[in-house]
Amino acid sequence: MTATRPRRISVIGAGSCDAATAAQARRLGALLAARGFEVVCGGGGGVMEAVCLGAREAGGRTIGILPGNDREAANPHVEVAIATGMGIARNVLVVVNGDAAVAVAGGAGTLSEIGLALKLGRPVVALGHYGTLPGVEAAASPEEAAQTVAALLDGA
Amino acid sequence: MTATRPRRISVIGAGSCDAATAAQARRLGALLAARGFEVVCGGGGGVMEAVCLGAREAGGRTIGILPGNDREAANPHVEVAIATGMGIARNVLVVVNGDAAVAVAGGAGTLSEIGLALKLGRPVVALGHYGTLPGVEAAASPEEAAQTVAALLDGA
Amino acid sequence: MTATRPRRISVIGAGSCDAATAAQARRLGALLAARGFEVVCGGGGGVMEAVCLGAREAGGRTIGILPGNDREAANPHVEVAIATGMGIARNVLVVVNGDAAVAVAGGAGTLSEIGLALKLGRPVVALGHYGTLPGVEAAASPEEAAQTVAALLDGA
Amino acid sequence: MTATRPRRISVIGAGSCDAATAAQARRLGALLAARGFEVVCGGGGGVMEAVCLGAREAGGRTIGILPGNDREAANPHVEVAIATGMGIARNVLVVVNGDAAVAVAGGAGTLSEIGLALKLGRPVVALGHYGTLPGVEAAASPEEAAQTVAALLDGA
Repeated sequence: MTATRPRRISVIGAGSCDAATAAQARRLGALLAARGFEVVCGGGGGVMEAVCLGAREAGGRTIGILPGNDREAANPHVEVAIATGMGIARNVLVVVNGDAAVAVAGGAGTLSEIGLALKLGRPVVALGHYGTLPGVEAAASPEEAAQTVAALLDGA
Repeated sequence: MTATRPRRISVIGAGSCDAATAAQARRLGALLAARGFEVVCGGGGGVMEAVCLGAREAGGRTIGILPGNDREAANPHVEVAIATGMGIARNVLVVVNGDAAVAVAGGAGTLSEIGLALKLGRPVVALGHYGTLPGVEAAASPEEAAQTVAALLDGA
Repeated sequence: MTATRPRRISVIGAGSCDAATAAQARRLGALLAARGFEVVCGGGGGVMEAVCLGAREAGGRTIGILPGNDREAANPHVEVAIATGMGIARNVLVVVNGDAAVAVAGGAGTLSEIGLALKLGRPVVALGHYGTLPGVEAAASPEEAAQTVAALLDGA
Repeated sequence: MTATRPRRISVIGAGSCDAATAAQARRLGALLAARGFEVVCGGGGGVMEAVCLGAREAGGRTIGILPGNDREAANPHVEVAIATGMGIARNVLVVVNGDAAVAVAGGAGTLSEIGLALKLGRPVVALGHYGTLPGVEAAASPEEAAQTVAALLDGA
């Protein structure tokens, strides 16, 4: 395809996280927005809220794809909330809607999204422990993550 | 819930349609946008493309929820394209993401979305033949459809 | 395709119903099983429970595709329970898994399934009020419904 | 819940595999069936076909949940084929429908299912390389995998 729509990055991570992880996610959101990427995530708290905050502060678009039926459950920095009512099956939609994925720390849900993204042939970059998984590019900082994911998409 | 996010109307109809139906859908899109509603649809052609055109011309937001994996398949008047890769199951997401639904003519897919919207307790207004279904409010014009759906939401 | 797997009928109807409707559904289940059809439904009560009862009494297989995550929620006459956790999106799977559909009375959920079945090109037969919908074959009795659906599949 | 339905194990692995992996999966299927477990898988080839073969040879029930719309695409050892038309989102249904999961080798799709199973709180056992993931119990043989998963379910 010749992409004419804005490119979009799935940012995946846990619904609650410590302050250092949230700071990383917020910084990542700002860097992705500055590169013109839209950010799509699961619309919840933790990493999802922080990356949306950062992206919005930098003028970017944020999309949150929620497990429930109620759009109001989205974190306040989600610009476009998409309800699914499909529970954990919404994880699939989070990665389907990005051209690549960046994981920020994360647990089992994040692991599932990494697997789905790889299965769909999306480039995957990870900040933190999932950087050691086969097929995943490790990044040591939000700056390196944003740069790596952009390079992977340009080379794709 | 106290709705703080923009209210959103699912506009449902066929992927190809005659010029008169398209004109109705375009007019409906403009009227919904003028009332501050976002428009969500299946992202395809026909009624979906016409309602997005009308809404965008009036400065409104349009969201298209697609059956396939490729966001580029959305019609050009979709502002935010959501890919699903879930085929016809995306019909559910079209109605889940609106606070009410308006049908413009339509065939079997539209019928399925009317049933899903009613099952979810969403008000449903129909321009054209589906106005005779139980539980559906008939409207004779785009103006009446927009007014009726707004009244149903305000009264909800 | 050359069908080598058992043919399967989606039986759709409300989760609660009166005794006469339940008797129709039970009789329908028996007749479908006697013709060698598997029965697939939404796995709940009402018409779904009655058709499963009838099919099982006649030695047929019954499959219930549930909205929730818990297989134990299936009615006791479901032989193979499939959980989805996808809420109303499971309606799609009910009709995808049949080669044709038979509606027994029913409300909005049933209407959605009729629309989805027609959209997928499945023959649809209805006992009761949905027999007047375009594209749907009306049947006056379980016997006529079973005969009609079998004829439609043999002619397909 | 008091489980009254048969317990069911999701067996996950790649759609094509070498002979040694297939032999492991077939042996695993036989052992699970001998313990009275139903086997649910993605319904395809490779590990999925081998585990179904083994389970059926031992008299067990096999369920295959397919990505496409066509039940005929299931491998011949699937007793009950469930079509979804939902693509990769069917991976969610594979793990939702098991009380625990056993991975046999596997790639990105398997990784996604492990993540989803852990997220849903299902015990996960892995034969092969995914045994090193946090939260996953490694097993060195089909015998150990069957025994471990049974013990985890009895202790749950």
